[in-house]
Amino acid sequence: MKTAMIAAAAPFAGANALAQTSNKKLGVALCGLGGLSTYQIAPALQKTKYCRLAGVVTGDPQKARQWQRKYDLPERSIYSYDTMERMADNPDIDIVYVVTPNALHLEHATKAARAGKHVFCEKPMEISVARCEQMIETLDKAGRKLGVAYRCQFEPHHLECMRIAREKELGSLRIIEGAFGFPVGDPNQWRLKKALSGGGALMDVGIYVVQATRYLTGEEPVLVSATEAKTDPVKFKEVDETITWTATFPSGVIAYCATSFNAGPLGHFRAYTDRGWFGLDPAFNYSGIKGMRSDGKPLEFPQVDHFATELDAFALSILENRPTKVSGEEGLQDVKIMMAIYESIRTGRAVKLAS
Amino acid sequence: MKTAMIAAAAPFAGANALAQTSNKKLGVALCGLGGLSTYQIAPALQKTKYCRLAGVVTGDPQKARQWQRKYDLPERSIYSYDTMERMADNPDIDIVYVVTPNALHLEHATKAARAGKHVFCEKPMEISVARCEQMIETLDKAGRKLGVAYRCQFEPHHLECMRIAREKELGSLRIIEGAFGFPVGDPNQWRLKKALSGGGALMDVGIYVVQATRYLTGEEPVLVSATEAKTDPVKFKEVDETITWTATFPSGVIAYCATSFNAGPLGHFRAYTDRGWFGLDPAFNYSGIKGMRSDGKPLEFPQVDHFATELDAFALSILENRPTKVSGEEGLQDVKIMMAIYESIRTGRAVKLAS
Repeated sequence: MKTAMIAAAAPFAGANALAQTSNKKLGVALCGLGGLSTYQIAPALQKTKYCRLAGVVTGDPQKARQWQRKYDLPERSIYSYDTMERMADNPDIDIVYVVTPNALHLEHATKAARAGKHVFCEKPMEISVARCEQMIETLDKAGRKLGVAYRCQFEPHHLECMRIAREKELGSLRIIEGAFGFPVGDPNQWRLKKALSGGGALMDVGIYVVQATRYLTGEEPVLVSATEAKTDPVKFKEVDETITWTATFPSGVIAYCATSFNAGPLGHFRAYTDRGWFGLDPAFNYSGIKGMRSDGKPLEFPQVDHFATELDAFALSILENRPTKVSGEEGLQDVKIMMAIYESIRTGRAVKLAS
Repeated sequence: MKTAMIAAAAPFAGANALAQTSNKKLGVALCGLGGLSTYQIAPALQKTKYCRLAGVVTGDPQKARQWQRKYDLPERSIYSYDTMERMADNPDIDIVYVVTPNALHLEHATKAARAGKHVFCEKPMEISVARCEQMIETLDKAGRKLGVAYRCQFEPHHLECMRIAREKELGSLRIIEGAFGFPVGDPNQWRLKKALSGGGALMDVGIYVVQATRYLTGEEPVLVSATEAKTDPVKFKEVDETITWTATFPSGVIAYCATSFNAGPLGHFRAYTDRGWFGLDPAFNYSGIKGMRSDGKPLEFPQVDHFATELDAFALSILENRPTKVSGEEGLQDVKIMMAIYESIRTGRAVKLAS
């Protein structure tokens, strides 16, 4: 451990050196082998240019064997949560992608950082502001990069919407409408257990809308006001089922948003300007994003693999030693806003955010 | 006056008698000859089955002449706001359609009632709860019918949405998203003067969304929470520019809504159930309403003239001596909710509504 800590804190070795140790592609260890890793991230890692699946961390030995066989992973790159700090001795692994339940992100990111690895962390970053801050500090002290898996920040339709907003191509932004939700299945999943998830629909999918309102405006909200509705107090005993919220931004833009684990599917945004609108519907799916503009011009781009794209972007930021677009601070900011949304629900009052 | 009051308070003469006095169609006097009367209501009255344009009330003698010529109106059916109570002696006029600025509705409805006429009143009914209640009482005492011009309540796409919601054809309602707004033109119009309008975007167009959330759920909201945004404090010195609000209903349905005088155009609603959705976009335009359902089935109906349809429905309710669907109480309820929305903005708190 001591050695690993010292190694991690040492000045960054340089992009080329790191890349060379892993066949020019950075090695990614997937930490947490649930549905997202299985059906989205691992397949995506077969398509990436700058990184590759190099190892796994799982609490399930049987899963470990399956993954080892399927992806032809070396024995030494298979870890449990208890052994993952041994990664310090494994030059094949450069990045740990933390895909465990929200409340375990800090623990697993910390172990990865102690092993001298960069961390790419699923959203939401963690379940409290303090834990996000701790993760940032830990990675910072370890001299390793921290990225949060905000796939939409690299998706062409979303990027085009940011451009239209920033260049005021269809006018000045006034109102953003956004929603993401679906009827959640298995009542026993960790997403419905507050100790693991920190919250329900908002933490899991509402966060996409929180993000979108920020990257569309390019601003931070100054006031949020929120309301909760619960129709199934058994299934949603511990976490939020449906939340709507309003966020106001310094320029006067106002966002009105919804998220739900028991409605829809719903997943779109539309940005209204002083003379038109543009938006995506569906906006947040893994594929099939569709754009529309009030002037009838196309808002169409090739569909990309969201996970491959965000992973390559993070790997490149390491290889080129540049700041990542989806920093820990970015992840922290969304958690701050979500905590203010929960506070507004608890108190029945609009909540001011530090600007 | 005295005579008119006594006549008005007398038992209702009977549908046939009234209809016969006006060539089987009820005579409608348009009170207020602005854009809505000129471009929507008067043309609609050429298409109605159960009523016809029989007179006008205007403060502008030149307009009076123009309308008289254009619609071949008899001299005695041309009134000013000061002379309209003389309608008591004019059997050609059965209904006064009040299309004046919001804060004048009570005055003009009262004059019409005193002249023994039924009143059809533009939305919003009036600018305060007390003034709405006074209008209801006045018409009630006069023994005359009062209807509020909620055209969507008679529009086939809206009726179909109410049916889908009520029959749970696509599941149980969970979330309603709704918005109506547009960039308002002339900065000198009465809609921007609080003394005449009582409020801005919310009173003028947001009311459509308030209505829609009520007729889709079939319930009254129990809690509203609202936020205002203002980007042009000169143009919108007296009234609201943009408002977003949330309304929660007893069954757990939650509505998140927006209205604006400085964005869009925006004008749609979508109702999300526990397993799908349905909605209209555009929803509130005078024509071109389009429906969509999550199951891909059509939600299409012939386009109707909204004004002709609502006027015929009101006329029929008089001819058949039935309650109107769009009663004064219906108008009052929306004003109560809008006042709660303004209160929430003022106080920064969620506001409970009497259920």
